[in-house]
Amino acid sequence: MDEPAVAHAPEHRLERLVFFSDAVIAIAITLLVIEIHVPHLPHGASTGDFANALLELLPNFIGFLISFFVIGAFWGAHHRAFAVAARWSERLVLANLTFLCAIAAMPFFTAFLSANGASRFPVVVYCGWLLLTALLNIRLQRIVTSAPVVDPDASPVQTATIRRRGYTVALGAATAILVAAISPFPALGQMALLSIPAWRLLLERRARQRGH
Amino acid sequence: MDEPAVAHAPEHRLERLVFFSDAVIAIAITLLVIEIHVPHLPHGASTGDFANALLELLPNFIGFLISFFVIGAFWGAHHRAFAVAARWSERLVLANLTFLCAIAAMPFFTAFLSANGASRFPVVVYCGWLLLTALLNIRLQRIVTSAPVVDPDASPVQTATIRRRGYTVALGAATAILVAAISPFPALGQMALLSIPAWRLLLERRARQRGH
Amino acid sequence: MDEPAVAHAPEHRLERLVFFSDAVIAIAITLLVIEIHVPHLPHGASTGDFANALLELLPNFIGFLISFFVIGAFWGAHHRAFAVAARWSERLVLANLTFLCAIAAMPFFTAFLSANGASRFPVVVYCGWLLLTALLNIRLQRIVTSAPVVDPDASPVQTATIRRRGYTVALGAATAILVAAISPFPALGQMALLSIPAWRLLLERRARQRGH
Amino acid sequence: MDEPAVAHAPEHRLERLVFFSDAVIAIAITLLVIEIHVPHLPHGASTGDFANALLELLPNFIGFLISFFVIGAFWGAHHRAFAVAARWSERLVLANLTFLCAIAAMPFFTAFLSANGASRFPVVVYCGWLLLTALLNIRLQRIVTSAPVVDPDASPVQTATIRRRGYTVALGAATAILVAAISPFPALGQMALLSIPAWRLLLERRARQRGH
Repeated sequence: MDEPAVAHAPEHRLERLVFFSDAVIAIAITLLVIEIHVPHLPHGASTGDFANALLELLPNFIGFLISFFVIGAFWGAHHRAFAVAARWSERLVLANLTFLCAIAAMPFFTAFLSANGASRFPVVVYCGWLLLTALLNIRLQRIVTSAPVVDPDASPVQTATIRRRGYTVALGAATAILVAAISPFPALGQMALLSIPAWRLLLERRARQRGH
Repeated sequence: MDEPAVAHAPEHRLERLVFFSDAVIAIAITLLVIEIHVPHLPHGASTGDFANALLELLPNFIGFLISFFVIGAFWGAHHRAFAVAARWSERLVLANLTFLCAIAAMPFFTAFLSANGASRFPVVVYCGWLLLTALLNIRLQRIVTSAPVVDPDASPVQTATIRRRGYTVALGAATAILVAAISPFPALGQMALLSIPAWRLLLERRARQRGH
Repeated sequence: MDEPAVAHAPEHRLERLVFFSDAVIAIAITLLVIEIHVPHLPHGASTGDFANALLELLPNFIGFLISFFVIGAFWGAHHRAFAVAARWSERLVLANLTFLCAIAAMPFFTAFLSANGASRFPVVVYCGWLLLTALLNIRLQRIVTSAPVVDPDASPVQTATIRRRGYTVALGAATAILVAAISPFPALGQMALLSIPAWRLLLERRARQRGH
Repeated sequence: MDEPAVAHAPEHRLERLVFFSDAVIAIAITLLVIEIHVPHLPHGASTGDFANALLELLPNFIGFLISFFVIGAFWGAHHRAFAVAARWSERLVLANLTFLCAIAAMPFFTAFLSANGASRFPVVVYCGWLLLTALLNIRLQRIVTSAPVVDPDASPVQTATIRRRGYTVALGAATAILVAAISPFPALGQMALLSIPAWRLLLERRARQRGH
C-alpha cells in the first residue's frame, strides 16, 4: 500500500505559512462580492428600472472596490515583507494568524458599512477596524524584518521601505477615522483613505532627506 | 522558541503573485454555483414537479456554465502569459489586482443576468463587464510580455500568440454587446460570446498570412 | 520602481494547473457545509428540542459526508493521475476545466438531494451528476496517462491502476442510479455508492488474474 | 497544439496533500465570518442604536474569534507535523481527508453555538465536535510521525513535541465538555478551551521531568 519510493521533505515552513496566508486573503477578498445582493426585477422591467436598481447598489459597489484594494494593499505589504524573510520562527504563527483574523473579518465590516453607509457610526467602525488591521500588519512586519527571520543579506533600505509602507496604511486609516468622526458628511471618511498614497509620498520624501 | 535551523528564502515573488491570482480565480469560479438557489419541493412532489423545478433553473445553469468557461478562459490566458514571465516588477501588483477585481465581481453579474435574463439591460451589462475584464487582461498581458518582466528567451511568436488571444475575448465581448443591444432577442447576446473561437481563428489566419 | 534583480521563470505550467485544480476542489468541498442551515431555537429550548433540531438535519449531514468523501475521492484520483504527468499539453486545460466544472456544481446537487431526499428524482439526478463527473474524470485521466503528458518512466502498472480506479467510481455511480431508479426506497441509491470499494476489489482481482 | 518542450514531473505528492489541506483550512477559517449577519438599521439610526446592534452580535464575534484561533491552532499542528514528513503513504489520504472533514464542518457548529449560545446543548455539541477533530488530528499526526512517512532524520524530541501538542487540544476540549455539562453557566465551557495552554505547560513540564 505504501509507496516508499517518492521521498520528499517539505522543509519550507515559511513557504507554507505564506501560502496559507495567500489563501485566506484571497478568500476574504473574493467573499466581498457575495455581500452585494442581486436585484430581481419583475418581468418587463424597463431599462430605467434596471439602471435605478443598479444605482441603488452604488454604495455597495464603492464599498466592494475600496475594501478590495485595501485588502489588496495588505496582500502587497505581506508579499513585500516575506520577500526578505529567510528563517522560520514559531513567533510568526500567532502574529500572522492575528493579522489574518483581522483580514477575514473585513467582509463583515464592509457589508456593515455598505448597508448603513450614510451614518457616522459604521464609517468610524470600518476605519477603526482598518486601523487595527494596519497595526497588526506593522507588528507582523516588525517580526519578519528582524532577526532571526529576516534574510541577513536584505538591505537596510529594503526593510526600511517595508516598514514605512506599513505606517502609511495606519496613518491613512487614522486620518479616515478623524474625518469620519468630525466632518458633517461621515462618508468622506472613506474617501480620506485615499490619503494613503499622500502619506506614502510624505514619508518617502522624509526618508530621502534623512538619507542625505 | 525560535528554530534557527530551517533557513529558507522565498525569493519567488512572481510565483506568489501567480499563486494568489489562482486562488482568487478559483474562488470566483466556484462561488458561481451558490447563486443558484436550491428548490425545496413539498413532500410527495411528482417527478414532473421536480423536472419543472429544475427546468425553471435552466437560465441559471446556462449562466453558470458560460461564466465558468469564461473565467476558465481568463485563467488560461493568465496561465499562458505568466509562463513567459521571468522577472518581477512592482507594476504587476496593481495591474493584476485590477484584473482580479473584475474577475471577483463576475459572480454578481452572472447572478444579475440569470435573475433577469429575458431583458436587454442585464445582458448588455454582463457583456460590458466581460469587455472591461478583457481590456484589463490585455493591459496585464502587455506588462507581462514586455521588458522587464518577460523572459528574454521567450519567442516573439509565443508573446504574439498570448496577445492575440487576449484580443479575441475582447472582440467576442464587443460582438456580444452589439448583438444584445440591437437584436430583438437580447439573450442572443450571451450566445454571441461563442464568437470568441471564430475571432481566434480569424486572427490566427491573419497572423499566419502576415508571417509569410 | 521595477526591481530588476530577482529573476525567476515559472516554467511549471503543469504545477500551476494542478494547483488551480486543488483550489477549486478545496472550495467546492468546503462550501458543502454552508448549505446546512443552522437552526435557531427560542431561548429556553430544552435539550430534547435541540436534539430534535439536529436530528431533522440528519439527511443534510449524511449528504454533506457522502459528498465530502466523493469529492475527496475525486481529488485523490486527480492527485494520483498527475503524479505520473511530466509534460504540458494544451489539451489538458479544457479537459481539466470541464472536470472542475462538474465538481464545482456538486454543492448544488448535494443541497438539492438533502432538501428533497425522500423522493426518487433528486437521488437519480445526484447519482447521474456523479456519473457525469466520473466520466469527465476518466477522460481527463486518459489524457494525463497518455503521450505526450505522461512521464515516460511511469510504469504500465501505475497507469493501469490509475485508469482502473477511475472506472470504479463510474461503476459505483451507475449502480447507484439503477438502485435509486428501481428500488422501493430511492434513498438506498445513495447507499449504493458504497459499492465503489467493492467494484475496486473486483477490478483489482481481475487485473491480477490477467497479470498471471 | 501540444508543447513538447516544457518537461516537468510533479513528484511532490506530499506537497500537494499539504497544499490541498491548507486550502481547505483557509476556506473554513474565512467562511466563519459569513455566519455573522450584518445588521441593517433604518436611516437616521443613532449611535446608540448602532452600538446596540453590534453588541447583540457579541456572542457571534466571540464565537468567530474562538473558532478562528482553534482552527488556526489545528493548522499550526498540521504545519508542525508535516514539517517532519518525508515520504508518501497512501494511508495519508483518508486520515487527512477525515481530519479536513471535521475542520470543514466547524463553521456550522460555530454558527449553531453563536445562535443558541446561552443553552447547554450547543456548547456541549461544539466542544464535542472539537474533541472529535482533536482525536482525528492525533490519528493523522501518528501516521505522519511514524515510518514510513516520517523523515528518518527527525529528532525524537521533535516528534514527541508534535504528538504532545496534539494531546493538549484534546484535553482542553474534554475539559470544556465537562465544564459545559456540569457548570451552572454552560457558556463557561467555551472559556474552558483556554485551558489548552495550561495543559500544554503541564505536559511539557512532565516531558522535561521524564527527560532527566
